[in-house]
Amino acid sequence: MKNQNFTPNWLEREANQQSFRSIFKWGAKDQFKNPSHGFLNVIKKELGLSDANFQAPVNSGGTIVEDTRKTTMLLEDIQQFEKIVGQENIFFDTYSRVKYSTGKSMEDIINLRQEKIENICDIVLHPRSREDIKKIVTLCHTKKIPVHVYGGGSSVTLGLTCQKGGVTLVMATHMNKMIKFNETNQTITVEAGMMGPEYEDLLNHATEKLNAKREYTGGHFPQSFEYSSVGGWVITLGSGQSSSYYGDAYDLVISQEYITPTGSFKTHDFPATATGPKINDIMKGSEGCFGVLVSVTMKVFQYQPETARQFTFMFPSFETAINAARQISQAESGMPSILRFSDPEETDIAMKMYGLEGGILDKFMVLKNFKPESRCLLMGQTDGGMAFSKNLFKHIKKVAKSNRGFYLTGYPMRKWRKGRFSDPYMRDSLNDFGVLIDTLEASVTWDHLLELYRAVRKYIKKHPDTICMTHASHFYAQGTNLYFIFITKMQDIDEFRLFQRGIIDKIEENFGSLSHHHGVGRMMAPWMERHLGEKQMDILRAIKNHFDPHNIMNPGGLGL
Amino acid sequence: MKNQNFTPNWLEREANQQSFRSIFKWGAKDQFKNPSHGFLNVIKKELGLSDANFQAPVNSGGTIVEDTRKTTMLLEDIQQFEKIVGQENIFFDTYSRVKYSTGKSMEDIINLRQEKIENICDIVLHPRSREDIKKIVTLCHTKKIPVHVYGGGSSVTLGLTCQKGGVTLVMATHMNKMIKFNETNQTITVEAGMMGPEYEDLLNHATEKLNAKREYTGGHFPQSFEYSSVGGWVITLGSGQSSSYYGDAYDLVISQEYITPTGSFKTHDFPATATGPKINDIMKGSEGCFGVLVSVTMKVFQYQPETARQFTFMFPSFETAINAARQISQAESGMPSILRFSDPEETDIAMKMYGLEGGILDKFMVLKNFKPESRCLLMGQTDGGMAFSKNLFKHIKKVAKSNRGFYLTGYPMRKWRKGRFSDPYMRDSLNDFGVLIDTLEASVTWDHLLELYRAVRKYIKKHPDTICMTHASHFYAQGTNLYFIFITKMQDIDEFRLFQRGIIDKIEENFGSLSHHHGVGRMMAPWMERHLGEKQMDILRAIKNHFDPHNIMNPGGLGL
Repeated sequence: MKNQNFTPNWLEREANQQSFRSIFKWGAKDQFKNPSHGFLNVIKKELGLSDANFQAPVNSGGTIVEDTRKTTMLLEDIQQFEKIVGQENIFFDTYSRVKYSTGKSMEDIINLRQEKIENICDIVLHPRSREDIKKIVTLCHTKKIPVHVYGGGSSVTLGLTCQKGGVTLVMATHMNKMIKFNETNQTITVEAGMMGPEYEDLLNHATEKLNAKREYTGGHFPQSFEYSSVGGWVITLGSGQSSSYYGDAYDLVISQEYITPTGSFKTHDFPATATGPKINDIMKGSEGCFGVLVSVTMKVFQYQPETARQFTFMFPSFETAINAARQISQAESGMPSILRFSDPEETDIAMKMYGLEGGILDKFMVLKNFKPESRCLLMGQTDGGMAFSKNLFKHIKKVAKSNRGFYLTGYPMRKWRKGRFSDPYMRDSLNDFGVLIDTLEASVTWDHLLELYRAVRKYIKKHPDTICMTHASHFYAQGTNLYFIFITKMQDIDEFRLFQRGIIDKIEENFGSLSHHHGVGRMMAPWMERHLGEKQMDILRAIKNHFDPHNIMNPGGLGL
Repeated sequence: MKNQNFTPNWLEREANQQSFRSIFKWGAKDQFKNPSHGFLNVIKKELGLSDANFQAPVNSGGTIVEDTRKTTMLLEDIQQFEKIVGQENIFFDTYSRVKYSTGKSMEDIINLRQEKIENICDIVLHPRSREDIKKIVTLCHTKKIPVHVYGGGSSVTLGLTCQKGGVTLVMATHMNKMIKFNETNQTITVEAGMMGPEYEDLLNHATEKLNAKREYTGGHFPQSFEYSSVGGWVITLGSGQSSSYYGDAYDLVISQEYITPTGSFKTHDFPATATGPKINDIMKGSEGCFGVLVSVTMKVFQYQPETARQFTFMFPSFETAINAARQISQAESGMPSILRFSDPEETDIAMKMYGLEGGILDKFMVLKNFKPESRCLLMGQTDGGMAFSKNLFKHIKKVAKSNRGFYLTGYPMRKWRKGRFSDPYMRDSLNDFGVLIDTLEASVTWDHLLELYRAVRKYIKKHPDTICMTHASHFYAQGTNLYFIFITKMQDIDEFRLFQRGIIDKIEENFGSLSHHHGVGRMMAPWMERHLGEKQMDILRAIKNHFDPHNIMNPGGLGL
């Protein structure tokens, strides 16, 4: 603990080609991000680790995935699929099958680090068109072969595992094109496999690339933005970091086109209708269990980055921060795009990460009764039209002040913004030394927020030597979400599973939703019946059975 | 045409008790509203009528509904229902059965004026509790007896007719109580039969009546506000006149409780979730075809009437008004609560109704090239926080100006607001003299607005001596709705049906939704398959079949 500037032997080199590591490593193969000294020192202290624990990486997954796991698919089936997509778009080597059956959940990663191959598909297809997909789904329906869809591969809820083998369709390879940009309606229609950065880039350069009158934004920036697909956002009900203003993925979808075992359809483009239950909404969040999402028409927004204003406040307590956030969300003055508040533990760690701890500002705050283990950061950004953004910024300052918020300028917020897409890289660095970092999240109404927070935190902190940071980052007049990050020393998959499932139990028992924006996957699936109740699960089962009577579409997904 | 101040023999007296008129007459039995001289003169001119046409009311429906239509329900069934709800809550006289099987669609009214009794229920029940409803639905499921639900009775799409007889449940009698007010979450839970005025009154006086810290509003004000129920808003997907800011009924619902033939459930209260397709949304708009909506939890908003600002502009053309409205809706500056623009015909009539035609202002406008048959009114109101409302008001003025809008102060808007709930009374006055007035509406994306407008208007105007006024009144970044009002001389039900169905055809063929906020009822039901397509109708059929395998819930509704 003495050496505050000790640097571990971070594994900053590209993973071997075809290795396990090349599959589970986050993001670009040549990009890395390690915890700062401040953050690492917190981890060492809280987890009771020493420099010795950071000498030699363990289970780093550098081994090549040997082609030892032969596909069990019949040759005649393989030939039929090959006929549909062409020889260059079909793969059944072990590496490809592992790669496209794996997401970024901690369980996925632990397994791959231990070189365990479980629940992989039999064959990987890269469909070139909706016609390819129609033929594939029809063939699979006839032959009762499971079908899975792989978008960006960033699922953290075991959304991509293939318990029953079968086919995985990789959408990002070919199904990634823009279909139509409609500036009058402010909508864009894209194939489901278009990735976040291409999508946003098109819109941000609409004058040049889409012959538009001005630039636009999609307004959707999940932490996985760079490695997630537009279709994935919709099918798993994701939320971006600016969701409080732009809306969750759910709100952004105008229409969708599906290919299901029992038929294909495209929903209407109306901004609203009163023609019975909305098919467009019934399909959202179906996680591939009803059919394959082929294309989506999304709302777009006028891009005006010049109006953005960042703010950061320190509050003396968690309660005052919560009150301020609730008042901002209910004030009828527009919503900030980004809004987030941290609990005391996350705040204290953030102070260390931003290098604020112990400085003049810190000392001043402590004098003013903003004390560690109690004080809470709230930060965010306003967007929208110039006067709208300015007015909202002023209003937020007023609300914060009336709740004893101390203004810390926009600096910490801008600092956070810089790291917001690269933070996931740190997980790999820590995992290399057996430090586990994982997250769980839930939505909650305002009246149950503290109850949920305390119950989950109590459970996590009961585990010895464990960091638990909590924040809320998606806001509604009626409530918000809680996002729990836990860091501990753990490598055994069974121990991890037991611990994680205990957290999910606590969430479910204390008025949290099973998922605010991570989707269900196979991780939450076992809780679905208890969470929604039998009668509501029956509805999902009835719809599932209508689309997919042979249960070939993502079998086991959604707990169906 | 000479006597500009001629006053018809308006039938301004209470309808006979138990008469046909007492059923179809809009609103309070002792309230009336007649067209102004200005409006009446337009009608006479456009429809080619003279004072002689307004001497003697025809088909005024004053006759008593004799108890001649015996119920066909078996005595043993009646006795079982009586055991459930008690003797005082069961009715099977003809009058009651007609009354609660009738809405306010033109077809309903024409039939009752002609004293035709069609498609009525066999028995009327006023359930006292969810337990009563459970028992009724279970009994009906077992005996295959149709079940209909009557809320406020304001359906204009034949939503209340009972083609197969059976039971009608009247919700407003007992199922009208507040269940829970949650100020922290800004939600209120009420039984489905609570009527609009009671709902809004509770919220507007929350400090006194709900022991709240401040006053609230529900933000939902359909034209039928005074005679519609909260459950009715949700189950038919209504929109209020302030929907552009507060949202449609669809957006206002946090959770719902249903009793269906195959089970009961209440959805969760989360402000957002990612646990698969949202059951709360699947149920909205189900129009009684899946089950009985028992209670709803709705968003409420801070009530701050002091921040409201009204505005009115005249635009030189329909196109400039449309552009201004679209720019307002896409500007990222917040949305006005009320926004509406009128086509040239409606504008010209409004000028006469508001007494502006021919005055100094009118002459000035004509000079400035704002000419009759071309110019268009746009008006509205901003709401929300004080600075938000003020800023938006300023922004709207700027957008209007840049589209050549001429500011007419807030006066016409305030005048419109005064009459906004009482205008439906005028329909009865005109109908009394054989003048038919009816409406149809559709949602549409911006890019198809003019196309839809022209096609529908052309069809309506082909009918001789017909007024066609059109406005848009619910706004989204992606589009709006068009609301067509037609006035013509017509009494024959078959002629009317043929004409009306032609309009629906035109809407459906020209990129309009079948309904923006009137629901489907049995009026739009025959178009549903064509409109949504077989595959999407199959989804609704599958859900219907899951809840209601014997097809007893509002049979024929939604075209299922």
